[in-house]
Amino acid sequence: MNTGLGFLMAAKRCEIAELAQLAHTSELVHTTGQLVHALQRERGLSNLTLATAARAAPPPGLQDSLRQQIAESLGLEQALRRCFDHLHTQRMHQGQSARLFSRIAYVLHGLDALPALRQHVAHQSWTGQQATAAYVKLVAGLLSVVFEAADSASDPAISRTLVALFNLMQGKEFAGQERATGSALLAAGSASGAGQQHLKHLIESQDRCLQVFHDFAPASVRNQARQQENAHNLAELERLRRIVCTAQEGTPLDSGLSPAWFECCTLRMDDLRAVEEHLAHTLVTQCAAQMAAAQRELSTWEALPPGPDSAPDPAAYPQGDFFASPHTPFGPRSHTVAQGGLSTTDERAHSSLARSVLDLVHEQSQRLHAMAAELDTVRASLSERKVIERAKGLLMAHRQLGEDDAHKLLRQTAMAQNRRLVDVAEAVLSMAHVLPQTPLR
Amino acid sequence: MNTGLGFLMAAKRCEIAELAQLAHTSELVHTTGQLVHALQRERGLSNLTLATAARAAPPPGLQDSLRQQIAESLGLEQALRRCFDHLHTQRMHQGQSARLFSRIAYVLHGLDALPALRQHVAHQSWTGQQATAAYVKLVAGLLSVVFEAADSASDPAISRTLVALFNLMQGKEFAGQERATGSALLAAGSASGAGQQHLKHLIESQDRCLQVFHDFAPASVRNQARQQENAHNLAELERLRRIVCTAQEGTPLDSGLSPAWFECCTLRMDDLRAVEEHLAHTLVTQCAAQMAAAQRELSTWEALPPGPDSAPDPAAYPQGDFFASPHTPFGPRSHTVAQGGLSTTDERAHSSLARSVLDLVHEQSQRLHAMAAELDTVRASLSERKVIERAKGLLMAHRQLGEDDAHKLLRQTAMAQNRRLVDVAEAVLSMAHVLPQTPLR
Repeated sequence: MNTGLGFLMAAKRCEIAELAQLAHTSELVHTTGQLVHALQRERGLSNLTLATAARAAPPPGLQDSLRQQIAESLGLEQALRRCFDHLHTQRMHQGQSARLFSRIAYVLHGLDALPALRQHVAHQSWTGQQATAAYVKLVAGLLSVVFEAADSASDPAISRTLVALFNLMQGKEFAGQERATGSALLAAGSASGAGQQHLKHLIESQDRCLQVFHDFAPASVRNQARQQENAHNLAELERLRRIVCTAQEGTPLDSGLSPAWFECCTLRMDDLRAVEEHLAHTLVTQCAAQMAAAQRELSTWEALPPGPDSAPDPAAYPQGDFFASPHTPFGPRSHTVAQGGLSTTDERAHSSLARSVLDLVHEQSQRLHAMAAELDTVRASLSERKVIERAKGLLMAHRQLGEDDAHKLLRQTAMAQNRRLVDVAEAVLSMAHVLPQTPLR
Repeated sequence: MNTGLGFLMAAKRCEIAELAQLAHTSELVHTTGQLVHALQRERGLSNLTLATAARAAPPPGLQDSLRQQIAESLGLEQALRRCFDHLHTQRMHQGQSARLFSRIAYVLHGLDALPALRQHVAHQSWTGQQATAAYVKLVAGLLSVVFEAADSASDPAISRTLVALFNLMQGKEFAGQERATGSALLAAGSASGAGQQHLKHLIESQDRCLQVFHDFAPASVRNQARQQENAHNLAELERLRRIVCTAQEGTPLDSGLSPAWFECCTLRMDDLRAVEEHLAHTLVTQCAAQMAAAQRELSTWEALPPGPDSAPDPAAYPQGDFFASPHTPFGPRSHTVAQGGLSTTDERAHSSLARSVLDLVHEQSQRLHAMAAELDTVRASLSERKVIERAKGLLMAHRQLGEDDAHKLLRQTAMAQNRRLVDVAEAVLSMAHVLPQTPLR
């Protein structure tokens, strides 16, 4: 029969297994970030191609760049598919994966549809807006995989980094949509109220995401982000933003600003991408370090002499320890044992060991609960997005809307009422009881 | 390479695996409830033995009852240890188990210490109060296993039942402590303010637990509980409670009421135990039903013809579906496929199937997220206890207190300030930043 120490070690092995899973997930997140960046560049080049093609044949240089970019995207797509397959084999039937797998299933459909999207661009059978919307949808799917990874991480420190990483990636995606929206406005040559409002919404969402990134990222990564901001003066981007956002509806916009706008936005995205890469590496290092620490602790326990704990014979050692509190979980006694100091079979040592294993149990238990509490705090930062997702789901179910239309309805309501998206979403959820009830299954 | 449908099925297999784990955990919870009840009876009989032994030799009938009860406890202890071992083998290295395993490690230490506790009772070397405190501690450890099971369940319906079950068991344990505390007061023969306040605290805690049980239990179980309350008139218990609770401090209490008190309380606990047994069976049935439903759905998907989804060749079928929203997740289209209606390899059927698999993905995703949201709501009901645990942990770490003393400090503060335990615990947590910081590891 298993003993207390046996289950203590089993608990530690669970933690190690979860950290190993997290290491896999971190790789997946890293590759996802690379593909997202490639698709964002592909989206930008596709838009440029479609925009110039509307006037004349696109310059061969641009077409070459797009071809090269597509080749890069294809390579990264294959890498990501391999990550997915690896996950499928490794994590099969383990906790918390159902939602992640379901996100992946969605993304795979999007990746399968990529060739058709590229055909539409090549044949110029879609407008820039249609192509943008398609890329946005696919990137959103990819980011939701990262979101799910952040939401299901079981270690608070790693969860913090994943939350920072997700918000950085999401912020960069808003920056990418800002680039596309601004380009479209400048290409149209005149200010449109709806377009400008959407641009402002994208800038605000971007800032909120990057704020969360700053709140959760490790200091070293935060510093890098700040240094880059200082190195690449953002004044030019802000100046262009002001010009595009403040022009009176219907007044002309100088389409000659297009290249400068595109370049500014691209520079910013590349900067964010560099920070993202740094953060992703930090994540991998963090996983390895946590795992090594847990492994070391387990080894110490495994090296404990087979004491009374493995032979629960009441005659062999005093049993009263369990009822003889107090146990100070951070006290010095447990340290003695954690360092494996006891090795005799002398009865007093046994008694001391028995008490100390109980201390270890207390310490482990307190630590796990403190971790769970910290994890709750970190995850709370993801709740805004969840509220929006839930409200969207509600609208889809009750008003028979598609996902895009549900999102558009929320966004337009927010814009019209000058409220935050999440506040509108919460209002929708609070009205849920007014809507007819549909069962979960 | 794996397809969207492949990952959709993987997600369903994850759910099924989690439900299978829950079925195991439910067995564990059932056995834990049986052992808790046996230990509560053992505690009562031990107290009677110690109380009568203080005056004269305990009657042989009582000693026989205690011996029989101990034999029953021992059998159930073996059964629970077997459950633990089974879990150890089965759930090794799976998510969410570290905390459960750590609770079990603690309980095993308590079970190992039981023989010593029984010796103290047999030799009358402990007072009734000491013996009660020891049993209370062990039962608290057992209940924390049930709490962890409720907190880690991944299915909202089953989680609801587990929350109801935990609160019923915890309520019954408060009833058991009420019996012991009231007995001690009556045996002492005169009213004590501290004892009376503790009794009131136990009655209130009990009522709160049973209220949560009523909020979360399925209707059939709630009705049984109500019928039992009607059948066994609670008026006599309430009358005795009033006599014991309202006597002026220092005035005599009629120790002749002891047998009536003990019997009333025992009857109530047996009633609650019957409801608990019903609820535990409901839980097992629920797990089996959910698992069968998930299995059926998976089988339907497995029977889908190998369509375009398994051969992502852009020429073979139109790929535009992913970008062609809206997808109505609860719409009629997905039902067609869920019933396996398509079997030809005709291209239009393929196209329709591809779209429908995407609908399935949407539906599954919405369902998983609705489940996660409902789960959050159910788990929120457990947060009160978590807050108290966290505050206790904080006091243990920062004031070098044992667990019992930390709890006592919280309880006494609550009594002195006439506030709820959870409010005091929250006040402690909100002061956490004032205390010196200790690292998690």
